[in-house]
Amino acid sequence: MDRRAFLARSALASAGLAASGARPLAAVGPQSAVRVNGERLSRQLAELAAFGRNADGGIDRVAYSDADRAAREFVLGLMREAGLAVRIDTAGNLLGRREGRERNLPPILCGSHIDSVPAGGNYDGPVGSLAAIEVARALGEQRVATRHPLEVVIFQNEENGKVGSRAMRGEDPAAYLEQATHSGKTVREGIRFIGGDPDRLALARRPPGSVAAYVELHIEQGGVLEREGIPIGVVEGIVGIKRWAVTVDGFANHAGTTPMDQRQDALLAAARFIDLVPRIVTSVPGAQVATVGSIAAEPGAANVIAGRARLTLEMRDLEMAKVEALFEEIRIAADGIGEASGTRFAFEEIYRTEPARADPRVRAIIAGAATALGLESLSLPSGAGHDAQEMARLAPMGMIFVPSRGGISHSPREFTDPQQIANGADVLLRTVLALDAAAL
Amino acid sequence: MDRRAFLARSALASAGLAASGARPLAAVGPQSAVRVNGERLSRQLAELAAFGRNADGGIDRVAYSDADRAAREFVLGLMREAGLAVRIDTAGNLLGRREGRERNLPPILCGSHIDSVPAGGNYDGPVGSLAAIEVARALGEQRVATRHPLEVVIFQNEENGKVGSRAMRGEDPAAYLEQATHSGKTVREGIRFIGGDPDRLALARRPPGSVAAYVELHIEQGGVLEREGIPIGVVEGIVGIKRWAVTVDGFANHAGTTPMDQRQDALLAAARFIDLVPRIVTSVPGAQVATVGSIAAEPGAANVIAGRARLTLEMRDLEMAKVEALFEEIRIAADGIGEASGTRFAFEEIYRTEPARADPRVRAIIAGAATALGLESLSLPSGAGHDAQEMARLAPMGMIFVPSRGGISHSPREFTDPQQIANGADVLLRTVLALDAAAL
Repeated sequence: MDRRAFLARSALASAGLAASGARPLAAVGPQSAVRVNGERLSRQLAELAAFGRNADGGIDRVAYSDADRAAREFVLGLMREAGLAVRIDTAGNLLGRREGRERNLPPILCGSHIDSVPAGGNYDGPVGSLAAIEVARALGEQRVATRHPLEVVIFQNEENGKVGSRAMRGEDPAAYLEQATHSGKTVREGIRFIGGDPDRLALARRPPGSVAAYVELHIEQGGVLEREGIPIGVVEGIVGIKRWAVTVDGFANHAGTTPMDQRQDALLAAARFIDLVPRIVTSVPGAQVATVGSIAAEPGAANVIAGRARLTLEMRDLEMAKVEALFEEIRIAADGIGEASGTRFAFEEIYRTEPARADPRVRAIIAGAATALGLESLSLPSGAGHDAQEMARLAPMGMIFVPSRGGISHSPREFTDPQQIANGADVLLRTVLALDAAAL
Repeated sequence: MDRRAFLARSALASAGLAASGARPLAAVGPQSAVRVNGERLSRQLAELAAFGRNADGGIDRVAYSDADRAAREFVLGLMREAGLAVRIDTAGNLLGRREGRERNLPPILCGSHIDSVPAGGNYDGPVGSLAAIEVARALGEQRVATRHPLEVVIFQNEENGKVGSRAMRGEDPAAYLEQATHSGKTVREGIRFIGGDPDRLALARRPPGSVAAYVELHIEQGGVLEREGIPIGVVEGIVGIKRWAVTVDGFANHAGTTPMDQRQDALLAAARFIDLVPRIVTSVPGAQVATVGSIAAEPGAANVIAGRARLTLEMRDLEMAKVEALFEEIRIAADGIGEASGTRFAFEEIYRTEPARADPRVRAIIAGAATALGLESLSLPSGAGHDAQEMARLAPMGMIFVPSRGGISHSPREFTDPQQIANGADVLLRTVLALDAAAL
C-alpha cells in the first residue's frame, strides 16, 4: 500500500471521534441504582484545592512539595472515612483497599493523581482521585459487595514523570530515581519525603495478571467534548509521542548590507517549516497533532540575519506508523525549503513514547455505563499522557473523560462543572460494577 | 499619489544600484600621478591585525579593551611616521594633521575606526583608517601641498555606538556616557581609559562649517560589488533604520489534547508573519531590506502550544517614507494573519535612525576619481551605519566602498583583496585632492 493510502486507511481505522453507543458486555444488575454523592465529591475537591493554592487562584502542588505531602495526608483521611484500608507502597503511591467477596480474585484498580504542574489547576488528577474514593464510599454506604477487591490508587508524581505508575508496572528505577523534579528534590529524595522507600521499589511492582482491570476518570484537557456538547468521553487509548530537535543552518550576515536576494536566513526557513507542519498534518483525516512549541535564532540579534535556528517538533497519534509517515512527508518538505533558501534542515529524535490502547472490552463497558445513565458518549484518543498508559502494560485499561471548559488545562483557568464531574464519577461507579461482574 | 505608486516612484528615485560614470567637478591637475603605496598599506594592516587576534583568526578588539588601546598606540605611531601632528581629542578620537597652504581654510577630514565587534575581522574600520594615514604619507613623500589642511581621524568606539563621531558632531553626552559596552566599561570609563576626558567633551565638538568635507573609505560589508565585479562603490548615503518589538498573543495550551483546528498558536502566526515580511518588502523595486533576526516563544516547551511569541522587525532604506509605507503594508498583513489564527499582533517602535545622504558633489568627485584611475564604479546605499553618518551633519560627506569577499563582515572570514584596498586608497587620495581643488 502506498504511503498516502496507508495514512487515509489508518486515519479511518483509528476511528477519530465517532460517537459510540456500544452496549456493555455485562449487565450491572440490582446495583444499578447505586449513585455517587456528587455534592460531597464537589465539596472534597474544593477542600483539596486549599493545598497549594496560589495568588492567581491556581494550584502549585508539584510532587514532593510540602503542599503535595499535606494534600496526601488529607486524601488518606478521605480514604479512611470511606472505610478503606490504607497503606503507602514503597514507591509512595497511596492505596485504599475494599475487600471483595471472592478472596482469590485480583483487585480492580481505579484512581489518578493529586500532584499538579507548576501554576496548574485542581482538576487534572484530583477529579479521578477523589471520584475513585467516592465510588468506594458509595459502595460501602449502599452496602454493595463486589466479587473483586477494589483498590483506589493515588499515584505519586504523575506530572513530572509518571513515577508512581512506572514503579508499579516495574520499570527499572535507574531510569528515573536520580532525575531532578520541580520540587528541587530528586525522585529518590522525593520518594523518601512522601513515605516511600526508594531502595525497595520492587515491592511496589504489580506483575501482569495481578490486577483485574484499571480504570481512570480524568478531565479531557482538550475542547472536543465541550465543543460537541457530549458529557462522557470513552478513551480509545493514549497517543504515542515523538519529538525531534530540528536545526536549520543558514548563514549569519549583516541585516543592513546583505540584499534580500543574497540571504541564507535560517529563521526565515524555519518560519516556512513551522507554517508547513500543520498543513501536512491536517492533509489526512484523523486526530493526529503536531506542534512546534520552542524556537531560538542564533545569534538572535535584531540587526543580524539568523545563521541558525533551533526548534522542536512534536507529533502525537494513536498509531506510530501514521506519525512516521507524516514525519517523512514533513522531512521531505523541509529539504525542499532548505534547497530553495540556501539552508539545511537536520532532525534528531529526542523523545519517543509508544501509544497505549485502552482495552476494547473496558471501552465497551464504559460506553454502556454512560448509555445506562442516559449520558451520551464519544470515543476519542487521549492526547495527553496518563498513569493509565503505564497500567495498560499490566492490566486491561480504560479511561473516562469529562469535559474541560474551554479545553484549558495546566492552568488556573482549568475547570469542569460539578455536575459533569458527578456524571463521570457515576460512569466510573457503574464501570467498576460491570467490570466486577464481567470476566475479562 | 497612492501608496504603491509612491513606493515604485521612490524606489526609482533612490537610484538603486545604477552604474555611475559622472565626471569630477574639478580636475586634479599635476598631482594626478600621485599614488599610495599599496604594499606598505597591506603590511600595516597585517601588523594591526596582531592586536586582538583570537584563536579563530578573527579579531577581538572591542572599544576600550586592552587590545583596542594597544592598537591605538600602534596607529598613533603610524601617524607620526607619516609626518602628521598627532593629538587625542577629549572624546578620545585620534587626530593627525597635515597643514595646508591656505591658513584660513577648514580641514578636509578623512578616516574611519579601528575598534571591532566581538569576534570580528580586521577590515571593517582598519582599511579606511590606515588608508587615510597612507594618503597623508604619500602626499608628504611626494611633496604635494594642499590648500586645505588634511586631518586623519580615527574615531573611537564605532561598533558599540559611534561614540567618537557623535561627540565630534556635538550630541549631548548624556545620551551615551553611562552606557555599558562590550569591554565591560561604561563609555565614560572607556573614554578615560583611552586618554580622553569625559567631563570636557564639548572641546571635541566641531561646529558645522568648521570642516570642509569628510571622506571615508570602508569595506562594503555586503556582496553587491563582488557580485557585479566592480571595484569601487560610490555610497549614495547611509540608510535609515527602524526597529520594532513585535508581540504575538495567542493562547498557550496542551500540545497533545488541543486539536489542530482549535489552536491559537502564537508561534505559528509569528512564522506566517516572518514568511510574509520579505514577500512584501521585495514587492517593490529598490535596495530596501527587512529582517526578523530574533524570536522567542512562550512558554517555549516542546509540548505546549505557544501562547506568545516575541520577535524583532528591522527595516532599512535611504528613504524613511518608503520604510513607513512598507511597514504599514506589513502591519495590515499581520492583522490579517491574526484574524485568521485567533492571535493578535502588536508593534512597538524601539529604535530609529535617520538616513544620512552623501553630498552629491562629493559623490561625483569620488566617481570621477575612480574613472580617472580606470576603475569602474557603482552607486549604492550603505546598509550599515558608519561614523560618516554623524559627520554628514557637520560637513559635506562621501564614502568609498571596496568589495567584501562573499559579502561577509563582522566575522573572522571578513576579507578584502590587497589590490582592491590599494584601489580604494588611490580613489581616496584623488578624492582628497579633488575636494581640495574644488570649492564645496
